[in-house]
Parts: sequence; C-alpha cells; structure tokens
Amino acid sequence: MDSMCELLGMECNVPTDIVFSFSGLALRGGARGPHSDGWGLALYEGRAVRTFLEPAAAADSKLAAYIRGYPIKTLLAIAHVRKKTRGPISLANTHPFVRELWGRHFVFAHNGTVRGVKRHPTGRFRPIGTTDSEHAFCALLHRIDEAFPRGYPEDPSRLWRALGRAARDIGVDGTFNFLLGDGTHLFARCATKLCYIVRKAPFRRATLADDDLTVDFAEVTTPRDRVAVIATAPLTRDETWTIGRPGEMWVFRRGRLAATIAA
Amino acid sequence: MDSMCELLGMECNVPTDIVFSFSGLALRGGARGPHSDGWGLALYEGRAVRTFLEPAAAADSKLAAYIRGYPIKTLLAIAHVRKKTRGPISLANTHPFVRELWGRHFVFAHNGTVRGVKRHPTGRFRPIGTTDSEHAFCALLHRIDEAFPRGYPEDPSRLWRALGRAARDIGVDGTFNFLLGDGTHLFARCATKLCYIVRKAPFRRATLADDDLTVDFAEVTTPRDRVAVIATAPLTRDETWTIGRPGEMWVFRRGRLAATIAA
Repeated sequence: MDSMCELLGMECNVPTDIVFSFSGLALRGGARGPHSDGWGLALYEGRAVRTFLEPAAAADSKLAAYIRGYPIKTLLAIAHVRKKTRGPISLANTHPFVRELWGRHFVFAHNGTVRGVKRHPTGRFRPIGTTDSEHAFCALLHRIDEAFPRGYPEDPSRLWRALGRAARDIGVDGTFNFLLGDGTHLFARCATKLCYIVRKAPFRRATLADDDLTVDFAEVTTPRDRVAVIATAPLTRDETWTIGRPGEMWVFRRGRLAATIAA
Repeated sequence: MDSMCELLGMECNVPTDIVFSFSGLALRGGARGPHSDGWGLALYEGRAVRTFLEPAAAADSKLAAYIRGYPIKTLLAIAHVRKKTRGPISLANTHPFVRELWGRHFVFAHNGTVRGVKRHPTGRFRPIGTTDSEHAFCALLHRIDEAFPRGYPEDPSRLWRALGRAARDIGVDGTFNFLLGDGTHLFARCATKLCYIVRKAPFRRATLADDDLTVDFAEVTTPRDRVAVIATAPLTRDETWTIGRPGEMWVFRRGRLAATIAA
C-alpha cells in the first residue's frame, strides 16, 4: 500500500449503497493503511449532495461506523481518505470539496500533489483551506465557468472535453489523480494510479482486498443494475479491475463508461 | 407550538457542543412538534463548515441520534427543522444551505415564506432546489458580493449594515426570519418570531421546554464562557429569553450581541 490518499467513486443506473466499498476504504483509514489524517464522503441526491467530513481517522470514526451501519442509496458518490501531503489537518482541508455552479453541486477529491497550482486563476471560486487540491478544484471550475458562460452545455460531451483540457493544463506539473462529480457524471482522471470496475449481470461474489468481508452482489441487485466503482487501487481481490493510463480521464454515466478523454 | 419551521443558532467565545439545544430542537422534529419534513445542522470550524442534512424526521433519525451521542464542539452552529411550506421534500430543499463567498462558507436557514422572492436577482449564486428560502439566500449573497467587490470588508460593521438593508428589501413582502453565519458572525433576523439568550457566568441549571432534560451549565463551563443561543421559540422553560421585534437583525460575535440592526 502506498503513502498517498485513497479515492473511491461510485456511479450507477439505480440507487445503490456504497457501504461495501466504503468499508474497504475506511479500513485503510488508520487500521490497515497509513491514511489517518481525515476522510470524507459525498452522496448525491439529484443535483444536490450531502457530505460527511471528519478531520480524523476513518477506521475508528463513529461517523464512519454510522455510515457503514446505515446505508444511504445514491446514484453518485465520492469518498476520500487522506494522508496529509500539504496543508495542516483541518475541516477546511478535508476532501471532498464542494461548490455550486450552474445550480448544481460539483464535488471533488484528489490524490497527489499539484505543483505550481497557484499560478492557475480560480476566478470567483475562492479556496477556503490551504491545500493545492482545493485550489486545483477551484481552477477547474473557473475554467468551465469561463468556457460555458450560459451554463451547463446542452451537449455534455463539450463539458467532458473542456474538463479534460483543463485537467491536463492544471495537472501538467503534478500528480493530478482526481474524482469529480457534477450530479450527472463522474469524471475520473488518472495521473499515476486509478482503476475501475463496472459490476453488472451476471453478478458474482466479491471479497475486500483488505479484509475478509464478502458480498454476493447477485443477492442485492437486479439484472439491469450497473454499478461503476473507481478507486486508487483495486478494492477487491477476486474481480478484474481496469487500470488507468497516465493522463486519461474516464467519464461515467448511468453505470457505464461513457467516454475516455485521451491524455 | 406553531406549524412553521424551527431555527436554532449558537455562537460562542469558546468551543461548545450544541447537543442540549439540538436535543430540544430534534424533539420538535416529529415526536413532539409537527416539524417532520427534514432537518439540518451546520457546524463551523474556522471559515469552513460541515453540514449534516436529512430529508426525514429528526426525532427518529439515526443521524440525529449520532449527533446527540457524539458532541462536536464549535464556535458557531446553525440548525433547522423543517415543516414543508413550499417545494417538495428533498435533499436540495433541506436547510441549512451553504455557499462559498470570499473564501469562507456562508450558511443560511430560514423560517417563513418570502413572497415575490424570484424578482430578486441571485447573480452567480444559483439555487439548486426549489425553495423560496434558498433563492432568498442566493439573493442576499449576491447583494453583499456586489456591495463588496474586493471581498470581506475590513470594517465588518459595513457588512452588518449591508446585510440588514438586503434583508429588509428581500423580506419586505414575506416572513423572513433567518439565521446566517459567515464563520465569524451569526446574523439573526426576526420577522415574526425569534428569541435569544446569552448564557454566561454565573451559570445555572436549565430545563428543556419540550422534555424533562436538564443541564447544569455550571458543571460544563468555565467562568469566562459566553454562549449565545438563538431560536424560533424559547427552548428552555426556566431561563429568560429576549424576544425579537419585527424587522430587526441581531449580530452575534464571540458570544455577545455585537449590534442590533434596526428594521
């Protein structure tokens, strides 16, 4: 296991709870992994999100235990467990970060360090904390806000490409692995490490890589369900994950890989 | 007890947990009161906030139980229990609402109905849900953003007065009781009903109005502590609350009433 942050995203065509995957991530938040400087989980309901943030270890967190014990179903979720790289431990520096743009919540979590990020303007989006990650998020939003002054583009593929270009520019001198949600899509960019799996029929059993917890997805799904799960490293030991290539950005929608934006 | 929403704010000079007052509010969220359409709690840490939102009754909420059982200390908190007046029940319509402005979180909760609010522009702040409350919040932020293009004013009393004027204009045709936090101040505007108390030495016992729960604040405080609590109606039956007058806005800072902006 490496010493950076762990990302987890889920994007589905039917409301799904993230407990199984979050349990795997939370175990890395102190008990099994070195990720002990805070964690966060953002769950969408339509264009709005609610976020659970804790600037403390996830593995012994009562809030994390509450979430594991009380599943909330969602079509789109982003989670993060942090190993501090830059900036002090505080609520303001805890991922995922949230901003409103175009009447919807955008949510962002990052793994890595973005050198030189301060030279990218953030316009009306002002960082609250001191992380390079939040600055990069604000710079991304500023770029698409400038690119689409009339709001969310009718052809969403224009947004995908604009985000891909902005991510390339902002991440050029850094390690810019991120997950970005807009309530409709999950954008997942790989700089150094990111992988995904789409679970669909026929569903099988899966076992967490860091624990003996097993779920038989056939028992908790219907044949039409599609669930994309994106993570820093494979969360299960008995499924085949697709490994990202440096610089490419995946776009997930309705539990499918809708596009891969090239590096 | 009336049929509208309940507001609760707390602003202190030392980190304080809101469990006692929140318990009183949560009891009105279904078990004792008619407020059963969602609740939310926002807790500041510096200029950043974390928010617990649930579009369901507070009294039987596991999340509310978690918060009652696991106190988080803060200098500034805003809570809301909702009885639906306009807009469907959804996460996007659940108070408190949050936006970033000037590199800090602003938090807003409202009690009442603001007629004609749609005529007030919101600029770059776009509502995500369908409530008049969120629109009014966006309009308030737009007003102060326009008034202070260089950011948070050095003399904060300029901000207090600008907010007072904006609140008067936006609330002119409606019932605009609200709590607004900026990470430094708690602004509390009374249109029809709002009251406050400042707890300070010598601390005494207090008993919830809706329950037999009693706290002896002398046991949980130091002589220098000051805690302002603002609520729709008095939360305790054995303390003297100050009742607001229509149109006035209180400004709390460091556990003191710093100013009253006249109607």
